[in-house]
Amino acid sequence: MPVLEWLDYAGVAVFAATGALAASRKQLDLVGFIFLAAVTGTGGGSVRDVLLGATPVFWVEKPVYLLICAAVAILTFFTAHLVESRYKLLLWLDAAGLAAYSVMGAAKGLAISGSMTVAIVTGMLTATFGGVLRDILAGEPSVLMRPEIYVTAAGIGAAAFVAADASGLPLLAASAIGVLAAFMVRGGALAFGWSISPYRPRPGRNPDDIV
Amino acid sequence: MPVLEWLDYAGVAVFAATGALAASRKQLDLVGFIFLAAVTGTGGGSVRDVLLGATPVFWVEKPVYLLICAAVAILTFFTAHLVESRYKLLLWLDAAGLAAYSVMGAAKGLAISGSMTVAIVTGMLTATFGGVLRDILAGEPSVLMRPEIYVTAAGIGAAAFVAADASGLPLLAASAIGVLAAFMVRGGALAFGWSISPYRPRPGRNPDDIV
Amino acid sequence: MPVLEWLDYAGVAVFAATGALAASRKQLDLVGFIFLAAVTGTGGGSVRDVLLGATPVFWVEKPVYLLICAAVAILTFFTAHLVESRYKLLLWLDAAGLAAYSVMGAAKGLAISGSMTVAIVTGMLTATFGGVLRDILAGEPSVLMRPEIYVTAAGIGAAAFVAADASGLPLLAASAIGVLAAFMVRGGALAFGWSISPYRPRPGRNPDDIV
Repeated sequence: MPVLEWLDYAGVAVFAATGALAASRKQLDLVGFIFLAAVTGTGGGSVRDVLLGATPVFWVEKPVYLLICAAVAILTFFTAHLVESRYKLLLWLDAAGLAAYSVMGAAKGLAISGSMTVAIVTGMLTATFGGVLRDILAGEPSVLMRPEIYVTAAGIGAAAFVAADASGLPLLAASAIGVLAAFMVRGGALAFGWSISPYRPRPGRNPDDIV
Repeated sequence: MPVLEWLDYAGVAVFAATGALAASRKQLDLVGFIFLAAVTGTGGGSVRDVLLGATPVFWVEKPVYLLICAAVAILTFFTAHLVESRYKLLLWLDAAGLAAYSVMGAAKGLAISGSMTVAIVTGMLTATFGGVLRDILAGEPSVLMRPEIYVTAAGIGAAAFVAADASGLPLLAASAIGVLAAFMVRGGALAFGWSISPYRPRPGRNPDDIV
Repeated sequence: MPVLEWLDYAGVAVFAATGALAASRKQLDLVGFIFLAAVTGTGGGSVRDVLLGATPVFWVEKPVYLLICAAVAILTFFTAHLVESRYKLLLWLDAAGLAAYSVMGAAKGLAISGSMTVAIVTGMLTATFGGVLRDILAGEPSVLMRPEIYVTAAGIGAAAFVAADASGLPLLAASAIGVLAAFMVRGGALAFGWSISPYRPRPGRNPDDIV
């Protein structure tokens, strides 16, 4: 499916760009840009493949993913001042990448395990773990800890895909439904500041017991 | 062995609860609770399985582990103010989980590698890496860096199991010895504040050499 | 090849020593020393093996690597005040380990994937990821974020090995070229403070767009 393949390359490129921008915030050198871009672009899929036992991981089979990350990193190194001024555009591209990856991760998890629960988890991991690794390596607060909807959008996209697939829809239609669901939720968070009500602490009954 | 299986589920649930409590400290939303609970509950066993090549990892084969983590996370989301006031109880449950996992991790490492050294290491990894991942993702100081005995208890449990197994005891007896050893050491740390004498720096001979 | 094997053991020992020194800075106990030494000494090779699907990872097959890490950790626990005063020597030993591992990682990646791009990446990962894990676990700023040349030296060593191997040189000669290239670049950084010009931010065109 060439459409899915191009979507895949575009997703890697967008995630790699967010890694390269983190490198620019840390004022790293060119190799630092490439390293963070590659980890962010391929990290989620690598973790998915390793947990599913689908090794060697996808970029060992198809090194073009690494070349895409390197190209994006080099481009960003010389143009980060322009890219930064278009950060809002990048957030929307990242939302598209998140949506595509939540479905691709879920599809691979479903194909290998046959379990809908596993598919939703691998969808969430694939879409978010590249960003998690980027934040850990760059020493920035994890994307998981931000109040804005992010992981949830990936989970909804993966769940919508799995449900559509289970209801007998063809793969392409189920994929489109999942991608749209994730993109609408994440897009709503970007456009309207959607967030889910977080846990609010209440005083415990026996404060002296709290260690 | 149904007893071991229930112990296994209980261990996942207890570790997942510590992950959900970390999510409550960070005031995450419900999906954040589930994500941190699942990573903490399944992280140690996942790392063990990946390193041993026992992939797909255990929760891909048996997604019920994920459902347990999700159920614990949802329960904690609505009752964390109660759970926090029972944090001391949770520490004791965590000690039980640590003890059970040090033996289960060692048993799997021993079965796959045949090496006692590897078995002790996989026992320690299985019992502690879920907590390590929880602390990294939540941006809290790692459990490894705390002065209190923790990793050591897992190592002692794994070593006791391996030694008992090598001496010819049946699997269930060796497991009981390992679980008890780990639980007594960790319990001693909780009850009496046991810690092992840490490294204390002394002045180097040529301070000017220190970079 | 006994020479390569001894180089391998020496590399593990040197990396393990940097992990044990991080444990001494955090004033951990003896088990903490062993844990950080083992993660640092074996982490890069473990990540390489897992991504390449070469599991169980190398130290499961050959637990002597773990024993080397434990021995180095115990030695460092009792002599860290001496080792620290020789930190410059350790940096040079670390440079030798980095050089050796960039080539060994590249050779394994090339053998399994047949791709030069993958080989360069696995060379860089093998040489640096032990240190990355050490810094994450110890809560110190990542080696990736320091201005000094480090990852780049591993990349140059891996690339030089791959190029020499592709040009038809025998394995030992290609290995020597790669090791020398990495060691000279890293050594230059140590001796003369070499660094690559980092990214320097310029003002964006539409500052109001920056989120």
